Amino acid sequence: MSTTVTSASRALDPQTMLQAAISEAELGRSEGGIPIGAALFASDGTLLGSGRNRRVQHDDPSVHGETDAFRAAGRQRDYRQTIMVTTLSPCWYCSGLVRQFNIGSVIVGESVTFTGGHEWLRENGVSVTVLRDQHCIDLMTEFIETNPALWNEDIGVSE
Amino acid sequence: MSTTVTSASRALDPQTMLQAAISEAELGRSEGGIPIGAALFASDGTLLGSGRNRRVQHDDPSVHGETDAFRAAGRQRDYRQTIMVTTLSPCWYCSGLVRQFNIGSVIVGESVTFTGGHEWLRENGVSVTVLRDQHCIDLMTEFIETNPALWNEDIGVSE
Repeated sequence: MSTTVTSASRALDPQTMLQAAISEAELGRSEGGIPIGAALFASDGTLLGSGRNRRVQHDDPSVHGETDAFRAAGRQRDYRQTIMVTTLSPCWYCSGLVRQFNIGSVIVGESVTFTGGHEWLRENGVSVTVLRDQHCIDLMTEFIETNPALWNEDIGVSE
Repeated sequence: MSTTVTSASRALDPQTMLQAAISEAELGRSEGGIPIGAALFASDGTLLGSGRNRRVQHDDPSVHGETDAFRAAGRQRDYRQTIMVTTLSPCWYCSGLVRQFNIGSVIVGESVTFTGGHEWLRENGVSVTVLRDQHCIDLMTEFIETNPALWNEDIGVSE
């Protein structure tokens, strides 16, 4: 089973895991949506589920990247060893999800364009890794510049 | 339009608004689900959307009462004047939803059987009213006693 082990081992590299979230973000962008993606991994690097923001695609304000990945992973009995990877610092809604379900680790692609609750998660015992991935920064920078009203809607900022 | 005005006025009574959430919780119970319901109201008492926990019904861990009501209300541009009514103190996931989207008020049916983040919301400027509704307490007490594993799964408590 060396292939599986190698695969899992590679997936545990934060940058490699982030790629699964970036692929979702890019898919979202191609659909005309908000380019934020996420993926939930087991401790051995197995991908449990991935997802993306689908406010635009489904006209559904409740589908953020992290909540979509969480849903895609199905019902799990214990999240303590799981790793939530997201292209952008999780908003309070998604940070609350991580805290309530005791997701043990969070990997953030960037927190330059938006900072949510990842410090709060760290204070509450979650292992948080914040990267500064230029591709993630570029995705959001371009999106926010061209769709400011939509972005404000997605993070509950009133005009 | 006096009927509308009367109706809206009545709906602004916390106990009356709570009834919409209780109806959802009871529907959830009748479906074999976790009996937690919620409803989002506009400031004039108009019901924007209601929903219930559907972990069991949809095999979907992301559908809590409050997130379902939020989804049912559709995309709103400004939540500051809205009121989230829920049969049970909102967990961190649902508290995070309220904070991120700047939902102005929360009415809680009870926080006897479970206490989530409603004090944190109060500290962050949300108007929070906690009732001690005996029907809500009875719904959850009976559910937790007969389904402890399912309840722990829903709030991320490991065995």
